[in-house]
Amino acid sequence: MKRSERLVAMTHFILDRPRELISLPFFSGKYEAAKSSISEDLGIINKMFQHEGIGYLETIAGAAGGVKYIPQFSKESSHSFVSELCERLQDPARLLPGGYLFMSDLLGDPETTRNIGRLFASAFRDKEIDVVMTVATKGIPLAYAVASYLNVPVVIARRDPKISEGSTVSINYVSGSTRKIQTMVLTKRSLEQGSRVCIIDDFMKAGGTIDGMRNLLKEFDAELAGIGVLAEAEDDEEDRVVEEYLSVVQIVNADDRKFSIEVRPGNLLDNI
Amino acid sequence: MKRSERLVAMTHFILDRPRELISLPFFSGKYEAAKSSISEDLGIINKMFQHEGIGYLETIAGAAGGVKYIPQFSKESSHSFVSELCERLQDPARLLPGGYLFMSDLLGDPETTRNIGRLFASAFRDKEIDVVMTVATKGIPLAYAVASYLNVPVVIARRDPKISEGSTVSINYVSGSTRKIQTMVLTKRSLEQGSRVCIIDDFMKAGGTIDGMRNLLKEFDAELAGIGVLAEAEDDEEDRVVEEYLSVVQIVNADDRKFSIEVRPGNLLDNI
Repeated sequence: MKRSERLVAMTHFILDRPRELISLPFFSGKYEAAKSSISEDLGIINKMFQHEGIGYLETIAGAAGGVKYIPQFSKESSHSFVSELCERLQDPARLLPGGYLFMSDLLGDPETTRNIGRLFASAFRDKEIDVVMTVATKGIPLAYAVASYLNVPVVIARRDPKISEGSTVSINYVSGSTRKIQTMVLTKRSLEQGSRVCIIDDFMKAGGTIDGMRNLLKEFDAELAGIGVLAEAEDDEEDRVVEEYLSVVQIVNADDRKFSIEVRPGNLLDNI
Repeated sequence: MKRSERLVAMTHFILDRPRELISLPFFSGKYEAAKSSISEDLGIINKMFQHEGIGYLETIAGAAGGVKYIPQFSKESSHSFVSELCERLQDPARLLPGGYLFMSDLLGDPETTRNIGRLFASAFRDKEIDVVMTVATKGIPLAYAVASYLNVPVVIARRDPKISEGSTVSINYVSGSTRKIQTMVLTKRSLEQGSRVCIIDDFMKAGGTIDGMRNLLKEFDAELAGIGVLAEAEDDEEDRVVEEYLSVVQIVNADDRKFSIEVRPGNLLDNI
């Protein structure tokens, strides 16, 4: 196989396996090339991944070493993506009663969700994360996008138990904004003890739902590794029950009577 | 930029944009290279994509021409992936009351869902599809995986309307296996008239839920372009209400009392 051909194959192979340690001898065997050539190839790939703003190859030295592709959105790409997102969201036609915002079109676009996944994976790149968790329904595509860049599984809590999932653990929680008591369930065999969990959701107001997921983690003796929400909205009526989190955008001054809204970048950009 | 560097950048760029027409002059401008060089690069990429079993570049001739990356799982990869899936599913510990099967671990694994998405995208490669549709919750990761390889948006019907989605259209349908009347809703602004829709779900017994989605499409004056389910199960009690569909696997002889189950490849493999 020529170098040019090998580079195409290796680029695809590496992109498909983020955060996975791949050894030089493995590449050397797979593509029937000397380790020195593979090493040069990896240098080119690393240079170009950084040039394209999609991440870099981390080199782990030693006998058990190799390379790992760490997806990381560049500062420029992140900033331009988030400001474009703000502009798209800052449309009064999106306003729904209760200060909610119509976002299903964005959440339904695989390219947009993939980019949001890239953002969170970049911001959480130094955390040890074993699994991404969300609650049905709208956070699901975001959770998968993040998980695919972190190369970890997803678990989904639900608001209603389904017969087709086996035995579950359930908790009650108080919805922050409506003060209603709600239930959240997670299938028993879906989360291992001691797992380090990253919580992802689409929207946070007072944070009651996310607090519910946090309590669910305790039932599973799992650890919280990070919280990420796409949009956070102001909540005047009471204090946030969740403090440490990353948000992609912040919705301020949403007023469905005055038909006005303002959307700003959230605190996630500070962590890129 | 050297050819070797350009090939890494172009491979990433193309993989990120399945089914999108990209013109030679565009590449030529982006990478500052002669059209003849770009043309050779595309030849190498096409050759290697086929070699790796992940698809091919379709060339569209003429002034408005260019190339399109068509993701297509090779026959060998598809067969080996499906038989591995059958083996993983054919575990009596997965049996749940009512002939259901625990699959959340597989559905929670981004690599597995991505491969299922590749399979469906390969099988549906000749259909004109504008949007992928599913119903919450478990079909969602599959729908996104398919949509990302087809490069189209996803719409999600729900069993309960949410205040945060705006006005909805709802239909009633009869669940095939339980004969219960259920409701399904879809946000009004989520689906355009005339859209060609591919329905994706995780599980089909009698097909009532999928029939419900089909009826929902009629309310939106949308067209059905195809139906894909991950697992179909036998249903003795009555005839299927859905006939034309592709299934990845078929569950036969599931018996939670005898603690036995058999999982076979579905009809999708005939279309790869």
